[in-house]
Amino acid sequence: MARGRVVIVGAGPGDPELITVKGLKYLMQADVVVYDRLVPAELLELAPPGAERIYVGKEPGRHTMTQQEINELLVRKALEGKLVVRLKGGDPFIFGRGEEECMYAVSRGVECEVVPGVPSFVGASASACIPLTSRGVSSSFAVVTGREAEGKQSRSVRLEAVARSVDTVVVLMGAARSYEILDRIGSVVGYSKPAAVVIWATTPRQRVLEGTVATLMEAARRGAVTNPALIV
Amino acid sequence: MARGRVVIVGAGPGDPELITVKGLKYLMQADVVVYDRLVPAELLELAPPGAERIYVGKEPGRHTMTQQEINELLVRKALEGKLVVRLKGGDPFIFGRGEEECMYAVSRGVECEVVPGVPSFVGASASACIPLTSRGVSSSFAVVTGREAEGKQSRSVRLEAVARSVDTVVVLMGAARSYEILDRIGSVVGYSKPAAVVIWATTPRQRVLEGTVATLMEAARRGAVTNPALIV
Repeated sequence: MARGRVVIVGAGPGDPELITVKGLKYLMQADVVVYDRLVPAELLELAPPGAERIYVGKEPGRHTMTQQEINELLVRKALEGKLVVRLKGGDPFIFGRGEEECMYAVSRGVECEVVPGVPSFVGASASACIPLTSRGVSSSFAVVTGREAEGKQSRSVRLEAVARSVDTVVVLMGAARSYEILDRIGSVVGYSKPAAVVIWATTPRQRVLEGTVATLMEAARRGAVTNPALIV
Repeated sequence: MARGRVVIVGAGPGDPELITVKGLKYLMQADVVVYDRLVPAELLELAPPGAERIYVGKEPGRHTMTQQEINELLVRKALEGKLVVRLKGGDPFIFGRGEEECMYAVSRGVECEVVPGVPSFVGASASACIPLTSRGVSSSFAVVTGREAEGKQSRSVRLEAVARSVDTVVVLMGAARSYEILDRIGSVVGYSKPAAVVIWATTPRQRVLEGTVATLMEAARRGAVTNPALIV
C-alpha cells in the first residue's frame, strides 16, 4: 500500500514553535523533507533521523532549482511511495506558490494536502505587538509584496490605490526598495503616519524599527532595512 | 514566585490541530482558560483537568461579557498568580481585539505575551484550496470584515476602492450582508469574476460554495450563506 503523497506544510513565521501541531505531526513522519531558505533549522531536526532533507531554497536573484524542477522532485519522491513534506516559510498559499506545487502533484495523480501556517506578517504583528486591525482605528488591511510594489509600470500605480483604500498596508520583502515604497505610501497617507519595519520576525534576530513613514525613510536611506523585512 | 501572567493565544481557524505548538504548550499548562465562541471544543480538553474554563464568547448581537469585563477578568486572575491563557479563534491581532486585552494587562503591571495563530482566512484558503495569491494572477490581497463593509456611509465607499486596488478581496463574517457585499464587489470587478464562500472553514462542517460573483449572489439570496462565512 503506497503511502506516497505530498503534504505542503507552512512552517510559520520563523520561531520553530509557531508551526502548527498538524504540520509538526507530518514533519515527524516524513520520508523526505523539501525545504526553503526561510524555514527554521530547528524544524528540520524534528524530522526522523533517516529522512532525506533536500534544500531547494530561493535566494533573491539565485535559485537552486527552478519551480518546475521542484514540482517534478516532489512528484518523483511521492511516486516512490514516500511521504514528502514540502516545508515552506509562513503559509504556503500566501506568496508561497504552494498551489502550483499542489496542482502539479494532483495532475500527476499524486495526492496532495495543504497544512496552513502562521503567515510571516501575522507572526511579526504579534511579536512586535503591532496589531493589523484595531477597534475604531484600523478595520481593514492589505498585503502586497515589495516585488509587486516595484513592479511593472501598469502595477506601480496600485500601491498608492491600496494605501488609499485600506487602513493598514503590509509590504513583504520590500527591503531593496523600502525607501521608494515608504515614499509612495507616504505620498498618499501622509509622512507623519505611524509605520514600522520588522526584520527577521519572531526569531532571536528580530529587529523592529518604529516611527513615522518619514523617519523610516531616513532609516532606509542609511541602509538599516535588510531582508527578510516587512513594512507595516 | 508569581507566575501570574496573561498569554493571548490564537487557536487557529477551526481544526484543533491547527493551533501552534507554542500555543498548545501554554494551553497545557494553563490555570485559567478564557475562551471565545469560535474556539474548537477539542482544544479546551487539552488544558489541565483542574484548569478553570471561562466562556466569554461573543455572538453577533449578544455579548456574555463586555470587553472591559474580559480585560478585568484576565488581570484579576493573573494577579492571583495564575497562568491565564486567553484563547481566541484565528489570530488574536486580526479582528480579535487581542491588543486591547494585552495593553490593558500591561497597564495594570501584568506581563502579557501574544502567540499568533493561523488566521481563519488563511485556514480557509488552504482547506478549500483557494490560494490568496497566485503567480501572475494575484499578487496582493486585502481583508475586511462584513461589518466594516456594511459600515457607516463614509466607510461604505471603501469596499469598492479595495476591490479595485488589490487582486483578491477577503470578507470575514459577511453572511448577513453577503448579497450586498457581493453586489458591490461585482460592480467593480465584474460579476463573472471567480468567487467563493467558505463556511465553518477547516472543520468537519466546512462547506465551500464556488462560482462567480453572480452565482454566489444567487446562493446568498436563497439563504445558503451562513456564518462563520468568508467571502473570497
